[in-house]
This record gives sequence, structure tokens and C-alpha cells, in this order.
Amino acid sequence: MTEQLSHDPGPAADRAAGPSGVSRRGLLGLAIGAAGAAGLAIGASAGSAASIAARAAERDAAASPYEYFGTHQAGITTPVQDHLHFASFDMMARTDAADLQSLLKDWSYAASRMTQGLDVSATGAVGGSPEAPPDDTGEALGLAASGLTITFGFGPTLFEADGVDRFGIAALRPAGLEKLPPFLGDDLDPDKSGGDLCIQACADDPQVAVHAIRNLSRIAFGRAKLRWSQLGFGRTSRTTADQQTPRNLFGFKDGTANILADDAGALDEHVWVAASDQPAWMAGGSYLVARKIAMLIETWDRVRLSEQETIVGRTKGTGAPLSGGRETTDPDFTAKDAAGAPAIPVTSHVRLAHPDFNDGTRILRRGYNFVDGNNDLGRLDAGLFFLSFQRSPAQFTTLQKKLSTDAMREYIKHVGSGVWAVPPGAAKGSYVGAGLFA
Amino acid sequence: MTEQLSHDPGPAADRAAGPSGVSRRGLLGLAIGAAGAAGLAIGASAGSAASIAARAAERDAAASPYEYFGTHQAGITTPVQDHLHFASFDMMARTDAADLQSLLKDWSYAASRMTQGLDVSATGAVGGSPEAPPDDTGEALGLAASGLTITFGFGPTLFEADGVDRFGIAALRPAGLEKLPPFLGDDLDPDKSGGDLCIQACADDPQVAVHAIRNLSRIAFGRAKLRWSQLGFGRTSRTTADQQTPRNLFGFKDGTANILADDAGALDEHVWVAASDQPAWMAGGSYLVARKIAMLIETWDRVRLSEQETIVGRTKGTGAPLSGGRETTDPDFTAKDAAGAPAIPVTSHVRLAHPDFNDGTRILRRGYNFVDGNNDLGRLDAGLFFLSFQRSPAQFTTLQKKLSTDAMREYIKHVGSGVWAVPPGAAKGSYVGAGLFA
Repeated sequence: MTEQLSHDPGPAADRAAGPSGVSRRGLLGLAIGAAGAAGLAIGASAGSAASIAARAAERDAAASPYEYFGTHQAGITTPVQDHLHFASFDMMARTDAADLQSLLKDWSYAASRMTQGLDVSATGAVGGSPEAPPDDTGEALGLAASGLTITFGFGPTLFEADGVDRFGIAALRPAGLEKLPPFLGDDLDPDKSGGDLCIQACADDPQVAVHAIRNLSRIAFGRAKLRWSQLGFGRTSRTTADQQTPRNLFGFKDGTANILADDAGALDEHVWVAASDQPAWMAGGSYLVARKIAMLIETWDRVRLSEQETIVGRTKGTGAPLSGGRETTDPDFTAKDAAGAPAIPVTSHVRLAHPDFNDGTRILRRGYNFVDGNNDLGRLDAGLFFLSFQRSPAQFTTLQKKLSTDAMREYIKHVGSGVWAVPPGAAKGSYVGAGLFA
Repeated sequence: MTEQLSHDPGPAADRAAGPSGVSRRGLLGLAIGAAGAAGLAIGASAGSAASIAARAAERDAAASPYEYFGTHQAGITTPVQDHLHFASFDMMARTDAADLQSLLKDWSYAASRMTQGLDVSATGAVGGSPEAPPDDTGEALGLAASGLTITFGFGPTLFEADGVDRFGIAALRPAGLEKLPPFLGDDLDPDKSGGDLCIQACADDPQVAVHAIRNLSRIAFGRAKLRWSQLGFGRTSRTTADQQTPRNLFGFKDGTANILADDAGALDEHVWVAASDQPAWMAGGSYLVARKIAMLIETWDRVRLSEQETIVGRTKGTGAPLSGGRETTDPDFTAKDAAGAPAIPVTSHVRLAHPDFNDGTRILRRGYNFVDGNNDLGRLDAGLFFLSFQRSPAQFTTLQKKLSTDAMREYIKHVGSGVWAVPPGAAKGSYVGAGLFA
């Protein structure tokens, strides 16, 4: 799990190189990647190194970046950033295990730099030869790290597709990692679902998230191809107690009862794959479910307030459960209204999704709002790009099955879906998914 | 031009109303709107007014809002915000001048509130009757005004479409307001072009911009229908000297030589319609051109750095002209390179678009980057949503014709287009476009 690269992909080495020359380590790192990725150029002039160092310093000053290397991948318990660019990739035909391994190394190297506010390589956007295309596409020059996290996942089809073990890793597939079962209300577009690999890029500046996905797509050239991608804004969850609970496009607070980053017990129980879970290479990892949920917002907007609140099970203003109290008050499902009916209806979203009615099942949500323009009827193509992390995909399946009687179902449609194994974080000097090649 | 509404749509009245009751003025304002807009509910409980006032205070505290009323509409010289939601609307069949007038009144009232960080009406998202759909969709509850500006425009087809003067305003059409001529390289999608009306919503929080367009679309129900819309991020221009020049998705600084908000002489000469210009109702207004420009970024990314810089006419790193100096140094088009050729090539973008080669023509740019997912080839559907304001559409046409020899043309494709007359700002107590009904 800690296979050594022939180079140290840490950005610190490059920063420390100073104006006299570009770090050889950084160059080697990209050279390895370029071997499998036509189009990335190698080369540096001493004169450009000073400006690279200056830029890195400038970008770092504006925000404290998140570490790329570590026990867990960043972007799961990290305080939810404001913007998302999510991308799903398929490995290209005629690629082999060496291609997959080199891609994961190159992606890790690039991610370890970009998350620190650095260009994708040591020569970057303008530091290479003028006679070669720059390694970095340049639109993040001068921008801070902006809280960027880059989180990688492996889909079921990476391990086996149409019965073929393309990369010799079928035996390593986690038992629970399979295409999600159909759910009531699914209207999935296969072109917006699945994928051999996924990348979740979150940042407080959308240009930084877009820059990350663009450059990782470019690095994948010849090995993996973008299958579908999604931009999101307005995080719909929180992962720390001091984050305000944001609102989804139904106008309700969303994610009040999320698992928080400081709740180590809940994370171990519900989010992180334990060492005793199988397979061993997933220990410290998690499973990511993505669901693109179209909201029929024009229809929702015509629903009376009391009905909206009945459907959600919370008040729209404060987000308090209909049983009373404040936003953070635990719902009291035994409370009755004046007519003697449950104050929180049995078909309400908050009740159906609550651990009390799902054998204690919890998930860590990390979704974003999206607007993709509008359809021919003049209705906004808008909704929730739901993202959740859990110790097993079965947790999501349990909750989603329970939501088959959700009163909210009338106003939503699931149009995209995917599930990926999210390996543990890469150890310093290694790369994400190294456990597949141990 | 200053026709009085039967109410004062200023939000100050609502804020001043205090906890004892909702401002009658605000209620009347929406009542007028609701007469033509089925689905907006009227009603308020005294108990909810306190929470409305508290929310308004909370939202105002976080940012100093821009005034909606004034000589010019906001959103033109306003320091460019980080996010855009742009929407084009068509008036619906069988609407008449009264519908158009009522729509403009209702939009102005709502815009005057939302730009101040308030709900779309005095009863708002949760202050109305529980037995009615809320006036406001709610997703901006708790968010600050976030620098929101809402800018309205009137397309050529509003004045006359297929030879029909639907609203009795054909005689008021500005002579220069007509569909833009075809340009070399156009590949326009008619469904993403034109529109009777447009709204440019800019804010530093995308959820606030989306909330504005969503609620204005809702208010238009039965009168106008969303034709197309576009989200943008990463402003590609600056309108004040202290704003950093941002980068477009080619990785270059864009908008260095833009007209700045404090350059009153240039604004009067190039941006604002003068009182002596025709028609009189446009005095203090401007003309808005929108061009959705797809960038072939994967192709661009394979171009060597020196060639990229030759195409742009500036260095990628600092943005200095190729004739030398710093970003803000004036280009020297007489400078020669070592081989005796012009240091700034004659086909470079910066030279072709420069006032020196266009009889002094200048425009105020206000574009945004966009990424709309990806195409079937796995390429990002990305580019520049170009927006410019000018005293006459002819200024844009002059520049765009000159760009027919632009070396950059190989890497871009214009896929959407529109032009709108942007009337002057509404006077306090009036509404945008009142001059059409004087």
C-alpha cells in the first residue's frame, strides 16, 4: 500500500528548489506521467523558476491548503467547500494494468500539487519551453489553493466489465461494490451514470475546481476519457458544527443531521472502511454514491407552505422539526398535532431517512445544488447533485429503498447514478489506489 | 419616464415597518404584480414579520448591497461580481402592452428587494399564509445580498417580430437595435440566441444569482417564458482598477484594457446612450451584446506556448504586451522582434481589437467563463460567455468584423448571440422601461 514512486511527488520539494532551478523531482514526476500521456511537454528554463516560486507563494498566502496525502482522502470530512466539479471517466480500449497504474500515479502527483495551489507540474503554465505546449492550462495562475480537495474513486466496471477482467484486479473488487439496484422513481440516463473512475474536485473558487478536472482530464489523455461531469454550487450539507446549514433548491435547510467531521465514533461506524472489513486495500477508505436528482421546482413552488413542510418534516424558516424546538433539536416522532396525528408525518422525508427507522443507518452527505440551464418548456434544469460517503454502499441502498414512500418523490426524479470505492488516502511518496498493485 | 407606481417599491419601507406588521406598501406592490401573475400568494401574519425583519438585517449585515434605482442600471459599471446567471425570455402568445408593463413593474419591484438581500415580497419565503405557496422560493434565506445586481434588456423582437407590433412600441425601437449581422465563424444555435427580454443577474454567491433568475421567471408566469439561460463563473473582465485581471479558459488574462468604472469620459463616449442620441427613452441606457463562445480548449492546450502568445499578442504569465513592459503597459504596435517582424503580430487578438485599428472603438466587457459538462467525445463543453455594453451595437459589430482575421478564430466558435437595449435605471418610485409607456 505504500509502494514508492521513483520520485517524491510532494510539492514542498519544488517550492524549496528556489530560483536557481526547477526541482528535478518534479520534472521526473511529470516525465513518468508523460510517458503514457502524449501532449505533456517537459522542459524548464532557469529564468522561469523564480516566477513559479513567486506565484506559488502568492497562491498559498490567500488560503491554507488541505493536505493531499494522509490516512483518508481529503474531500470527505473536509468542511464542505462552496463549489464542485465532479467527473466520471472510462478507461479507454486497449489499456492495461500498467496504464491504470501510471494514470493513478500521475493523477496523484498532479493532485498533490494542485491542492497546494501549485501548477500541475514544476514547469506549469509558463515555465516550460516556449516551443512546447505548457503542462498546465493556466486559468488558475494567481488563484489561491481555495480549499481544493481532489478525491478519487473506482467504479465496479474498473474491476470487471462485461465479464472481462481488463486490469487483472477482479479478485480485488469489494463485494459490496456493484451497480446500485433500481429504485422506484429512477429515470436514469446511462450517459450520466456510472464510470470506471471518478474524481470529486471541491473548492471555494469554481475556477480552481474546473482547472483541476480539466488538467486531470488532460493528463488522462490516451488512457481514460471523460464520460460525464457535473458542476455544483451552494453546498447542501455541512461537515462541521460551525458551518451554517445551507438550503437546497426546495428552499429548505438540508443536512442538519449530517455526520460531522469531529464525530470520530460515527465516522468509524458509518463512513470509514475498517481494517477488519474486506478487502484489506480499502481499509481507511469509503464508498461514494452520486445521484443526480432533478427537482421539479416549478411544481414544488406551487405547493402551499404547510404541505411543503409536511413533506419535509421540518419548518421552512428555521429548519426545526415539526415536533418543535430549533433546527438542531432532535425530531420527536411520538409528538402529536392538535388533531392527534403525528406532528412529523410518517411519509415525511426526515422520518423516512432517520436512523431510528433504518436500524441506525447513517451516511455522510456532501451534495451540491445544480442548474444546467433550462428545458424547452422554459423550466430550469435544476436540482440536487447528491453525494454521500458510507462504509458500505448497502447503507445508501437501505435508505433509498425506504424513501420509496417519500412524499417528496412527486417532486424529484433521479436522472444520474454512480457508486465508487474510494480508497484510503495515499501515503507520502505513494499514490492513490496503490493497494490495487501491491 | 418616471411614471409613479401606486406604491413605493423601495425595500426601506418594509424594513422600517418593524415587528408590528408588514408594510402595506410592500403588500400592495406584490398585489399589483400578482394580478397578472397567477401563483403568487398574498397574506401575512404579524408573527412572521419579526422574523422577516430579523432575516433582512442578518442578510444586509454581510454585504453592502447595490442600489437598484438610479440614473443607470446597476450591473454595468458595478465591480464585476464572481458569478452570473443570465436569462433570455420571450413574451408569451396573446400578451399585450398591459402585460408587458405589469411584468416590468413586477420585475422592478422584485429586483429592488432582492438586490437589497430581501425576499421577493414582504411575505417572502415563509411569511405568508401556510395555506398558500410562498411568494419567495426560499433558497436565499439567510444569505447576504452578495453584491447582487439585476440588469434588464429589451431585444429587437420585443418591438417588432415577424412584422407585427405586438406591444404598440415599434415606433420606439432604437434604429441600431436589430439582430446582429452574421460573422465569419458563427455557428449559432437559434435556441440559445435572441429573446424579447433579457436579465443579467450577477452576484458573489451563485445561489443568490440563481435565486434571482428563478424568482423573476416565476413572476413572469403567464406573461413571459424563459427562452435560454446561462450560468457563468470566474469573471473574465474587471471594471475597477483595484480588481485583479482574471483569466479566461485559454489561461490568459482578459480585459486588461477594459473601460473602468471611474473613467467618466470613456463611459460617456463609449457606453452610455447620450440624451442627444435617439430614441430619447434610452438616454442613460446602453446596449448589451451576449455571445456564447465555445472554446476548443483541448486543441488550444496542444498549441505551443510561443504560438499561444503570438495569437493573443500578450505573454501568458504576466499579460504584458509582446512589445514589452508590464500588464498595464500600452502595446507598442511599431515594435519589432529580432527578425524585424512586428513584435505584436498583425493577426494577434490584442491588435485587431485595439481602438487604434478600429477608429477608436471601445466597449465595456463583462464576460464570464462557463463549463456546461462535456460532449460525447469526452471534451469539456466550455468557453467564454462574452458580455459587452456599448453606446451602440455598431461598436460591437465593428470590432467583431475586424476579428474575422483573428488568429484565435481557429480555437473558438460562436454558438449563441443576442443584443438588447438596456434602458436607463428606474427612478425611485418608477420601474425599468417606464419610458416605453410614457
